[in-house]
Parts: sequence; C-alpha cells; structure tokens
Amino acid sequence: MNIATLGPKGTFSHEAAIRYNKKAEILFASTIRDVFEYVSAGDADCGIVPIENSIAGTVGQTLDYLTEFGLRIKAESVLKISHNLASFGEISEIKTLYLHPQTYEQCEVFIRKNLPKAEIIQTSSNGKSAEIIAKSKHKTKAAIIPKIAADIYKLNILKRNVQDSSFNVTRFFVVGKEDNEKTGCDRTSIAIYPESDKPGLLYNMLGEFASRNINLTKIESRPSKGRLGDYVFYIDFEGHMTEKNVSESLKRLGRFGSVKVLGSYPKRY
Amino acid sequence: MNIATLGPKGTFSHEAAIRYNKKAEILFASTIRDVFEYVSAGDADCGIVPIENSIAGTVGQTLDYLTEFGLRIKAESVLKISHNLASFGEISEIKTLYLHPQTYEQCEVFIRKNLPKAEIIQTSSNGKSAEIIAKSKHKTKAAIIPKIAADIYKLNILKRNVQDSSFNVTRFFVVGKEDNEKTGCDRTSIAIYPESDKPGLLYNMLGEFASRNINLTKIESRPSKGRLGDYVFYIDFEGHMTEKNVSESLKRLGRFGSVKVLGSYPKRY
Repeated sequence: MNIATLGPKGTFSHEAAIRYNKKAEILFASTIRDVFEYVSAGDADCGIVPIENSIAGTVGQTLDYLTEFGLRIKAESVLKISHNLASFGEISEIKTLYLHPQTYEQCEVFIRKNLPKAEIIQTSSNGKSAEIIAKSKHKTKAAIIPKIAADIYKLNILKRNVQDSSFNVTRFFVVGKEDNEKTGCDRTSIAIYPESDKPGLLYNMLGEFASRNINLTKIESRPSKGRLGDYVFYIDFEGHMTEKNVSESLKRLGRFGSVKVLGSYPKRY
Repeated sequence: MNIATLGPKGTFSHEAAIRYNKKAEILFASTIRDVFEYVSAGDADCGIVPIENSIAGTVGQTLDYLTEFGLRIKAESVLKISHNLASFGEISEIKTLYLHPQTYEQCEVFIRKNLPKAEIIQTSSNGKSAEIIAKSKHKTKAAIIPKIAADIYKLNILKRNVQDSSFNVTRFFVVGKEDNEKTGCDRTSIAIYPESDKPGLLYNMLGEFASRNINLTKIESRPSKGRLGDYVFYIDFEGHMTEKNVSESLKRLGRFGSVKVLGSYPKRY
C-alpha cells in the first residue's frame, strides 16, 4: 500500500501517514493538490491531508479539493501537535533558531522566555528546519521541529513540548476512491451549495438535522461561485449516509440547493 | 497614525495596511499575536490582520486573539490576491523559482505549464522571496510575489496575475480599542460559547436571528475549552450591535451560553 502526503519528510503530515499505516510506502507531494492528483491518477492508494488545526483553523484547500476531485473521506485521524527544540549543542549555546512561521506562532512565548537573544530564521517547512540543522551540525544552531523530523535527521531533542498552548491538535482526512461501510459509530461530511440566500436559510436547513435528532459536529461557511457573499456550507454530523434519518435529511436538504456527500467514516472523537 | 501588521515588508498584509491608510507609519510584526500585542500595549494605534482567504480559509489565530485580547473590529477590508512572476531576466532564462508554499499552492498549474523545469525553492514569506531575488540579481532566478514586493525591491514583473483561480481574495480586519458608531450599513461579528451540546443547539441559536430577519454572512465552529468536541461558534451578520433587532437577538442568545461581541463595523461587500 502507498500513501500520498504533504512533504518534505519530517512534517506532521508525514507523522500522520506513519501513524495511519506503519508499513505503507509514503509518496511525498509538494502541495495538497498534488496529494489529490496522486490518488485520482491511481499513483497512490490513498492520501492523507490536514483538514483542521485547533489553532490555525480549517484548511480550505482540502475542503475544496474534496468536491473538485470527487474523492471520498475514508477515515479521520487526530494528531497531537508537539513541537520540540533540537540542536547538536546546549540551550545556552544557541544563537540561531530555524523554524516554520506557523511553528513560531505556536511557540512564541517559549522562545521569548528561553531564547530571547536568538536570531530567528523562518523556513518553508518543519522538515526543512530539521534538514538545515542536520547539514550544518553547528552547536550554535537549533530548530523547533516534530519528533519525527528529529528521528529522521538524528538530532538531539533538548526540550520536548515547547508549544505555548497545551491544546494543539491537527485533524487529518484519509482520502480515497470508495465509500466506507457503516460501522455504527460514524461521522458524515457534506457540502451544501444553496440556490438562494435569504435570512433564515441556514436556520431552515439545520432544521432538517434538528428534527431528526442528528448531532452536528462542525459547520463552516466558505465563499463560493467566485465572489464573497455567495456561500457553500460544509457540515459534519454524527451518523452514516446509509442510516434512515441521515438519508432522509440529505434528501430534504436537496430542496435548498445542491448537496454533495464527501464521505461517511468511523469517528475518532 | 501607525498601523501594526504582519511583516516582513512586501507581504499582502503590508499591501492591505497601505490601502487602509496611505500615510500611516507601518510597524512590522513577526506574528499575528505580536500585532495584537502592539495594539494592546498602545505601541500601534490599530492593527491589520488577515481573517479569511477565499482559498486557504479562515485564520484561526485572528479569531482566537480577538477574544483573548479583547480588541474590537474597527473595519474590514477585502484585498484581491494577485501573484506576479518577477525576475531580472526573461521567462526562458529562469532556472530557479523562489516562492512561499501557499503561493506555490495557488500558482501550481501556471508553474507546471510555463516553468516545468524550474527548481522550486520554498521560502518563509512572499516578502522574503522578493528579497532573495533582489540580493542575487541573477537572471536565472525568479520569484512569484505581490506587486508591492516588486515595487519595494525594484524587480521587473514578467507576468501579472499568475494565480490559478480568478477568485482569490483575502479579507482583513482592522483591530483597535474602541467601538464604532452605527453607519446604517454595518456588519457585526460575535463569538458564542454554548454551555451545553445537544442536537438542535445551533438550530435553536440561529432561530434568534431568523425570527428577527437578520441575515447571517459567515458561520464557523471551532474547537474550544481544550478539546475537540466542545465548540465556540463565530458568526457574522448584517446590522449594528446598537440596532434593536440585533441587541434583542444577542440578549436572547445569552440563554445558550456566553456571547462576546467582537465588533460592529461598516460592511465592505
């Protein structure tokens, strides 16, 4: 089995892919779009892509490519995001710190307190930060990176869990070509493209779930049709698309516009 | 007047700040959190931060810092995101292309078609891409950057608007310390922290808007309280917090949990 995910090696996407299937061969893509293209073209059996980080928010591209490529969500996976300070030297020796801008945003309080004088050099990915340190081997250089990157590049971790927020998780979707069977403990993701916009539209749409006792677990409106002001709604809810109350809701939602089921999959939280 | 925004110079945030106030002095911050800290501490009169890109989605940090720092949304501003190919040489001479990973994601089809053999080097920001080209001056190197970065670093634009999607806009919030007066054409942003979670909760909350004919323009659920499965809802709707139907809705929403008004401001779309 091979899995496409966002590279380079040593990223959190890489870690999520290994956790999903330890034995799979991993195909690194440059962009989220490339992951979808590899799976669509049959170059990978499935892809694993970030959908939502508890701090940074939803990854819009993943939502849009799901509808564009017509792939199905096969599974969800939640990864705790743990940042680690790595170097060949000691904390007191660090003069230069390499890290991704998002990593900097998530570790800023730690850095200000513990490395106030270090020069900060931002990199294009967490894997890249690790690669720079590994190549230089200089004791005055450090990086903040995922554990997997430290393992791959054989770097010493000086301090674990240097992120400022104790709650930092990323949810990933595994995407593939086929629908899943019902397990009895499933979640379904859909996109709704309403035909008109007027006060009460969303309220009326959600009534189809409320009246059937279906619990929503995520909702998000995104601009569509090429302008701000027109919306597509992405909704996650509990249940499998083959369950009677779910299939009835989906059918009734069709009155408001076009409804696309992105997948039903075992829920992990 | 001085405005804090996300640096380095030459970013889309920089462009948004100039468009908001041409004469303001600009204070560049390393992170979105720093922008909020500058404004909170009085080092800047206001800050300008991205809240939503039509392709990448909502910027979670901006939502969270609005509630954490207790600043108010003073204005919204929508910037068309236009990417430009810049170099000192010609397209046929380009061997290396510098660009930010998000920029790569948004220009990938153009690059594959027009620069299939170029080596791609990802950078930490659009401003950084421009700086690298400006320092090197080599004709075989190119960058994909905002127009403002080409202007600042005096780079030739070889081709404008190389982004793959014709609809690529970023919405920014201007944040400050005081509430705005009503203009008659306003939008209000709120955060709701529900006290309980059960099927129909969101439906019942939205009923308070629907019954008063208030039009929602954005909705998003985000994990809160340190775990997936508990949610805060961010909602934008038309109207000013001092209008009767709005203030009544907000009061009634209090039955469901804690409601924070993030600001009422003139709507721009």
